[in-house]
Amino acid sequence: MGKEKNMNHNYYMKIALEEAKKAYKEREVPIGCVLVIDNKIVAKAHNMKEVTGQAIYHAEVLAIKKACEKIGIWRLEGSYLYTTVEPCVMCSGAIIHSRVENVIYGTCDSKNGCHKSKIDLLTSNLFNHKVNVISGIMKEECEKILKDFFKEIREEKRKK
Amino acid sequence: MGKEKNMNHNYYMKIALEEAKKAYKEREVPIGCVLVIDNKIVAKAHNMKEVTGQAIYHAEVLAIKKACEKIGIWRLEGSYLYTTVEPCVMCSGAIIHSRVENVIYGTCDSKNGCHKSKIDLLTSNLFNHKVNVISGIMKEECEKILKDFFKEIREEKRKK
Repeated sequence: MGKEKNMNHNYYMKIALEEAKKAYKEREVPIGCVLVIDNKIVAKAHNMKEVTGQAIYHAEVLAIKKACEKIGIWRLEGSYLYTTVEPCVMCSGAIIHSRVENVIYGTCDSKNGCHKSKIDLLTSNLFNHKVNVISGIMKEECEKILKDFFKEIREEKRKK
Repeated sequence: MGKEKNMNHNYYMKIALEEAKKAYKEREVPIGCVLVIDNKIVAKAHNMKEVTGQAIYHAEVLAIKKACEKIGIWRLEGSYLYTTVEPCVMCSGAIIHSRVENVIYGTCDSKNGCHKSKIDLLTSNLFNHKVNVISGIMKEECEKILKDFFKEIREEKRKK
């Protein structure tokens, strides 16, 4: 992967991080996502689980939902999904079913991650679609926003 | 499990099968789902992937989405999810994230199933929620509708 490609990854991950910041402001676990096809942003989304009361409204699922809506078909061929955090089991499933070709994520999720952490669903031979995965893009920033969020939550609980 | 409980399972699975029949009529892979809390049906849904162009609109995801909408929170405590077919990776993830307590399914899915077939995600120790699973309820009926559907599709393709 050349320098130019890396710069692209950082460019889109920064936008995913902006989405994560929106989640932070809404008191949601700050995870953001951008879906790109042909170098164009097709969908942006952030975690909206608490605010909507919807178990399925993780950033990645919402981005895939929006992208399918926009394109009109469930096959997101040639797509790049940028997410600040390693996808969970549900989001990995949504990625597989929508045939997302490339997943680029920032930091790992030791409790729920389904690439490196808990299990590998994205690049395994289990299902009929395998994803190209790049991890660690803007890792520090993607990790910091999560740490800051959980620190703030803990401090608020202590004050109560 | 007593006889009475078994009869309940059959009662709700029949309704899930009615949902699967709706999918069949819409030329969707015929899978249906019913979500029950306190012996009341909270949501019914069938696979709508092709008709909506939505990769995520499997029967189980739609039932969970509707149930969360109705109840107003993402925790479906004490819930029973009846589905005609063994849940896939995405639906298993949605089941785990919404804390569905019990999954009752009809027939296995050798290509995508995430309980007995490809991998066990529902009752494993991988994540922070484990599901009670009962399989094989009205197995023959749940399998037959799928076989009929795929046979019809194959025959149509042959005629072309």
